[in-house]
Amino acid sequence: MTHPHYHAVIMAGGSGTRLWPLSRRRHPKHLLALLEASTLFQSTVARLQGAFPLKQIWVVTVRDQMQALQAQAPAIPPENYLPEPAPRGTASVVGLAAVALRHRDPNAVMAVLPSDHYIRHVALFHRLLNAAYLLAQEGFLVTLGIAPTYPATGYGYIQRGEPLGIYADMKAYRVRRFKEKPDPLTARQMLAQGGHSWNSGMFVWRADAILTEIRRQMPDLAAALDEIAAAWGTPQQETVLARLWPGLRTETVDYGVMEGAERVAVIPAQGLGWSDVGSWESLFDVLNPDADGNILRGGEHISIDARDNLVFVKNGHVRKLVAVLGVENVVVVDTEDALLVCSRDQSQRVKEIVNTLKEQEMDEYL
Amino acid sequence: MTHPHYHAVIMAGGSGTRLWPLSRRRHPKHLLALLEASTLFQSTVARLQGAFPLKQIWVVTVRDQMQALQAQAPAIPPENYLPEPAPRGTASVVGLAAVALRHRDPNAVMAVLPSDHYIRHVALFHRLLNAAYLLAQEGFLVTLGIAPTYPATGYGYIQRGEPLGIYADMKAYRVRRFKEKPDPLTARQMLAQGGHSWNSGMFVWRADAILTEIRRQMPDLAAALDEIAAAWGTPQQETVLARLWPGLRTETVDYGVMEGAERVAVIPAQGLGWSDVGSWESLFDVLNPDADGNILRGGEHISIDARDNLVFVKNGHVRKLVAVLGVENVVVVDTEDALLVCSRDQSQRVKEIVNTLKEQEMDEYL
Repeated sequence: MTHPHYHAVIMAGGSGTRLWPLSRRRHPKHLLALLEASTLFQSTVARLQGAFPLKQIWVVTVRDQMQALQAQAPAIPPENYLPEPAPRGTASVVGLAAVALRHRDPNAVMAVLPSDHYIRHVALFHRLLNAAYLLAQEGFLVTLGIAPTYPATGYGYIQRGEPLGIYADMKAYRVRRFKEKPDPLTARQMLAQGGHSWNSGMFVWRADAILTEIRRQMPDLAAALDEIAAAWGTPQQETVLARLWPGLRTETVDYGVMEGAERVAVIPAQGLGWSDVGSWESLFDVLNPDADGNILRGGEHISIDARDNLVFVKNGHVRKLVAVLGVENVVVVDTEDALLVCSRDQSQRVKEIVNTLKEQEMDEYL
Repeated sequence: MTHPHYHAVIMAGGSGTRLWPLSRRRHPKHLLALLEASTLFQSTVARLQGAFPLKQIWVVTVRDQMQALQAQAPAIPPENYLPEPAPRGTASVVGLAAVALRHRDPNAVMAVLPSDHYIRHVALFHRLLNAAYLLAQEGFLVTLGIAPTYPATGYGYIQRGEPLGIYADMKAYRVRRFKEKPDPLTARQMLAQGGHSWNSGMFVWRADAILTEIRRQMPDLAAALDEIAAAWGTPQQETVLARLWPGLRTETVDYGVMEGAERVAVIPAQGLGWSDVGSWESLFDVLNPDADGNILRGGEHISIDARDNLVFVKNGHVRKLVAVLGVENVVVVDTEDALLVCSRDQSQRVKEIVNTLKEQEMDEYL
């Protein structure tokens, strides 16, 4: 495929507290080899390499993670790594990337992609990216929607409006409405009603189109971005960035831009095999359980009358045996200094543990 | 109390596979600080020191454990440590101890006591030992019975017969019958019927009385013990022991002697606060759970919506945090190289894990 003006922007600044105790401040989720031999970030890069030349793959991250990311993906040109001075939400990230891309390519179309998701069917993913590119060329802000499989309350939803036609064999729709993470009843209603997709956090748009929307809805951010754009590529670039960035309001691109944007489209993806790997429970969608429904990773394992459990052992300097006896639907994650035992249906609450650690200043476990 | 001919014999040769992964071949149960700062063996010794002079406290063990035991209880005279050349069951242990005791004191009365039990009420325990001594002086083989609190299937039962009178304020009975570990229905029937005690594995008898019963019921063992007795205290002692011991049939004193013995008495103990610490579940009888019913030992702990769990962390070279979220009635035991996650009501099956380790030759975890 590879369009000359099409760029991929990987957002790689997060921490992923819901995968504690494996994900830690110094070992954020996208830098973990959670599902495969490669890390989620490396898999994200590999997935994009078929669709984008390396010089058109960008990474936005925080300065702390820069070195680790470059070590994991040395093929990406160093100048394509964009460090945020501090985390200020995805709206700012997207704005910064748009400025940098337009500096190199005024006609840039950008696919904005999280660094820590899983996608099983890469060929379909590439077709989606291709369709979104065509739609973005018409000025749309395009979201890639995921066909909901259950009434999830952990995702935002996108309601489809009028059809926009077929783009590279994919149906596209105008977006009627974004709905942030719903309550269980609303989630069930949307699922029953149909016409909704999960918001995957994957977007495609022209760099100038998103900057126009930022200007309309977030004028403070737009003003800062103008100053940054003026300094970009000059010796003042870093100074200006360092001066303006801390003053930015932290905001997501979903809340800050997409919900109020004018020309928004969705391409609903069916059968993408997508997961945001957003909780230990989500690994059951991605990894293959054994005959007893158990997923056993790392270390050595004995299971007796144990079903539908996830046992994840971080390989440390000592080989570890985990024996599970007579338990069901339990998540066990063992690292050298921290152990999680959690019921599967509560695994999205792991961030409460992280919050407790913060409150109690048990920083060594964060 | 302290009677001049009264000796305590601590049986300290076992391994305690049901407390894996804390108890291991090289760290048998009685050498673990499981409940208190002291080990179960040390607590056993401490409990006896009020009732027996140190020179009348004996320890029978296997050669491998000798050094560790002496290090834990250096106050016991070295000559009171009796090493079995190899484990051959408690019948052989009792016979060996009887031979050694009679060599020093022909009128010896011996209290045979496991090294790895817990007893909360030490004063009552001493009264029991005193009563048993008086009964043993009349030639009885005395068992200390425990008042059953639930229809346990993991203990042997003792059915009481005719009353023998009051000894040091304790009621004593002839034993009508020993019943080995019953099925659940039989256990419930015995509990409903009354007149039964659990077999605590604590016995009191004259050394000559138990040797007479061994001679009557286990003539092979008696013949070996005669040879050992003849060599005891001579330069041939070790040679004779090493020659005869491996040929002994492995048998418990319960099966081999008590079930068929003639003058057997029981003193039922009520409110002794006894536990054989025979499974992780049993720790709930001994340790005090917190307000949520959790017992959290070792390391650091966070519990969120977690109830009635046992979390036991062996303190290693790294401090460890265990976070438990949304689980109930689970046992978690973490050591440096092995982790157990087990439902409480299955915790007596931990020995199946140990058996699996043996079958799969995963010796490093045994």
